[in-house]
Amino acid sequence: MIVTVEPFANLTASGKEALYKTLREEFDRVCELKLKLNMARGKPGKEQLDLVSDILTVLTDPADCVSDGLDVRNYGELSGLPAAKVMFADILGCKPENCFIGGSASLQLMYDLIAKAYTHGLKNSPRPWSQEPKVKWLCPAPGYDRHFGVSGSFGMEMIPVPMGPEGPDMDLIEELVKDPAVKGVWCVPKYSNPQGIVYSEQTVARFAALKPAAPDFALMWDNAYCVHEVFGDYLPFPDILSLCAEAGNPDMVYEFASTSKITFPGAGISVLATSEANQAYLQSLLKFQIISYDKVNQLRHVRFLRNKAHTIEVMKMHAGVLAPKFSCVLETLKREIGPLGLATWEEPKGGYFISVNTLPGLARRTLELCKQAGVTMTGAGATYPYGKDPADSNIRIAPSYPALEELRQAIEIFCLCLKLAALEKEI
Amino acid sequence: MIVTVEPFANLTASGKEALYKTLREEFDRVCELKLKLNMARGKPGKEQLDLVSDILTVLTDPADCVSDGLDVRNYGELSGLPAAKVMFADILGCKPENCFIGGSASLQLMYDLIAKAYTHGLKNSPRPWSQEPKVKWLCPAPGYDRHFGVSGSFGMEMIPVPMGPEGPDMDLIEELVKDPAVKGVWCVPKYSNPQGIVYSEQTVARFAALKPAAPDFALMWDNAYCVHEVFGDYLPFPDILSLCAEAGNPDMVYEFASTSKITFPGAGISVLATSEANQAYLQSLLKFQIISYDKVNQLRHVRFLRNKAHTIEVMKMHAGVLAPKFSCVLETLKREIGPLGLATWEEPKGGYFISVNTLPGLARRTLELCKQAGVTMTGAGATYPYGKDPADSNIRIAPSYPALEELRQAIEIFCLCLKLAALEKEI
Repeated sequence: MIVTVEPFANLTASGKEALYKTLREEFDRVCELKLKLNMARGKPGKEQLDLVSDILTVLTDPADCVSDGLDVRNYGELSGLPAAKVMFADILGCKPENCFIGGSASLQLMYDLIAKAYTHGLKNSPRPWSQEPKVKWLCPAPGYDRHFGVSGSFGMEMIPVPMGPEGPDMDLIEELVKDPAVKGVWCVPKYSNPQGIVYSEQTVARFAALKPAAPDFALMWDNAYCVHEVFGDYLPFPDILSLCAEAGNPDMVYEFASTSKITFPGAGISVLATSEANQAYLQSLLKFQIISYDKVNQLRHVRFLRNKAHTIEVMKMHAGVLAPKFSCVLETLKREIGPLGLATWEEPKGGYFISVNTLPGLARRTLELCKQAGVTMTGAGATYPYGKDPADSNIRIAPSYPALEELRQAIEIFCLCLKLAALEKEI
Repeated sequence: MIVTVEPFANLTASGKEALYKTLREEFDRVCELKLKLNMARGKPGKEQLDLVSDILTVLTDPADCVSDGLDVRNYGELSGLPAAKVMFADILGCKPENCFIGGSASLQLMYDLIAKAYTHGLKNSPRPWSQEPKVKWLCPAPGYDRHFGVSGSFGMEMIPVPMGPEGPDMDLIEELVKDPAVKGVWCVPKYSNPQGIVYSEQTVARFAALKPAAPDFALMWDNAYCVHEVFGDYLPFPDILSLCAEAGNPDMVYEFASTSKITFPGAGISVLATSEANQAYLQSLLKFQIISYDKVNQLRHVRFLRNKAHTIEVMKMHAGVLAPKFSCVLETLKREIGPLGLATWEEPKGGYFISVNTLPGLARRTLELCKQAGVTMTGAGATYPYGKDPADSNIRIAPSYPALEELRQAIEIFCLCLKLAALEKEI
């Protein structure tokens, strides 16, 4: 790796050209290696999956399959295994009665909630959203591409809201919710996707106290990284359900979490936590859709994770694998890009991503070059509604999947591509 | 049990009263026993669940979790594990490319398909069904209460279609589909719920060749009992997908199946089989909802069930438990009710139910008496759209869940209650 330490603007024209030529030659050499490196998605690596192998053997015979007197191998219990509700309530700080236990994906619970809003309406909806002339939705950005995908799929008008160091711009959100067509907002409150920002206490309190014009406004609280510390101890976080109830908004919030990055991604269990009144309403619709989600897998998770304290222990093992990967990315960015002033980034303490903001107009080109060099990244713009990043600046780096040595190679190539993209504009 | 052999109409008034008094005394004695017997739902019994315990241990360490080079413990493969598609295609007689592998409930796949029809429309829909002034739906009856529940939940107008010994009344269906508001039909083609009727080849061919006015008419082919023989060998059944394609209706049919009554109910895997064009369309919507269903559980099923031939072997073990239960119900009905002419019933060779048709006006009262005597049954009318059985006659008996001795007691009490209900009308 060629370390460049001087901002490009300080170079002479011929200096820029010489540097470009050198970097381009290195880039060509990398391309010839025909690498296949992937920093696109928040996929745990094999080493993490191997850490939780015991979940495969916690239930091995019929006698293991009974929980609270219930044979989990048979039909029944729409809202899920009581012991699974107790476990998620412990993790989230709410009550077991608030919890509906879902299948292997909290994304599906989110999608289904929105789908039901369209087909039947939520508890306080004047009518199904399919009968509304327009549905608008607040999208703190950069944010999670799959959230925006759900909104886009239903044809919502997505309104981007800037993210700051304490979370979304609450002044703007408080203003926007005065429009009764604004029906909800996506939030990843702890270790936000992609920046890893933790919403401040004040931000959380302002969300809980929102006064939306829409009676069925949905605060979609995707607590995907609720126990997902990478550096340092578990960070306590407020229970949004009780805060909303205290602020007179008991039915406004829908909180989601899953074990996808605790046990096996796509083969874990998920939870929708909301008011008991919302649960009663939603279950009156859900009973036509499913008899119950997979209670055998729910019991596997209860036996393996046990409770919040033990889940945090499991997460420390994950952090042991993830922390060196996050450090590798952060150190390489600092060394390669820092002195050049080509980008800024957060230094998250948890979650699954590192969010890089390049100088305007460099993201798309950087990722094109990465692709040519065999490094797959989340597409440019993916972190914005409609896939449109107005500054063409934000890039989400997912360090978890590659092995550490591959990751080191991938992030160095990324830095090389960012420099090339910047130099292309200078020469 | 008091055996009565003479049709009640042959008795004198005082003979009827004496018989009623005797039966009522027996009923009162039964009530005092405070029994708790359940013939309500098609739940496999514990003995059946224990038969398949090996599925709990087919994956015990990381090396077991690779299938076709794919680590099933991680995200990916929206349409499911390739090996699971191969297995279901073998069972159903279609191609792996036709199969989308779902979660623990085929009911959820059916519900979601209808939900997508409402929110987005099906592949050939002129508009989402939520924008249609009216959606009508054909409901062969008696039929499966949960099918009618889905239709009812979406506010469809349900049109009952009589069932005959070869399946639904096809003359009527061919007439009704000329109405463009008629958007689909529920079918359980093999061992129908509740009668256990197997649609004849001609019925299946007429379904495949339907010419509905609605371009997005959905033939909902719930092949829930595709390998669920109780008496006798596996009964081959035509592949509806190829028949529809041959008849020029490749995109009309959606076939569903699951392992709910093969491995663990509510913890198995499910399949939606349909044309590749439908798959492409549906997956373009499904990709916003889920990354994939639980592939670890998919692989457990592939390892345990292997293929169609071995699945049929597993089903023979289930039949070994179920056949004595079905025989017990059929023999008791024959002995207790047969000579009295109070009801008729099918003698199914497979499936999960025995469907009894009492003389008109006796079903609701019979089930009221059963409830008083501690025997829970599917509610009267449940097998008809809107829960309304016009003749108040059909009763679904589910023999699978109780142990054989409990079942014998339950079905004898049922016969007693039916006699009492009939006598109440005579005296």
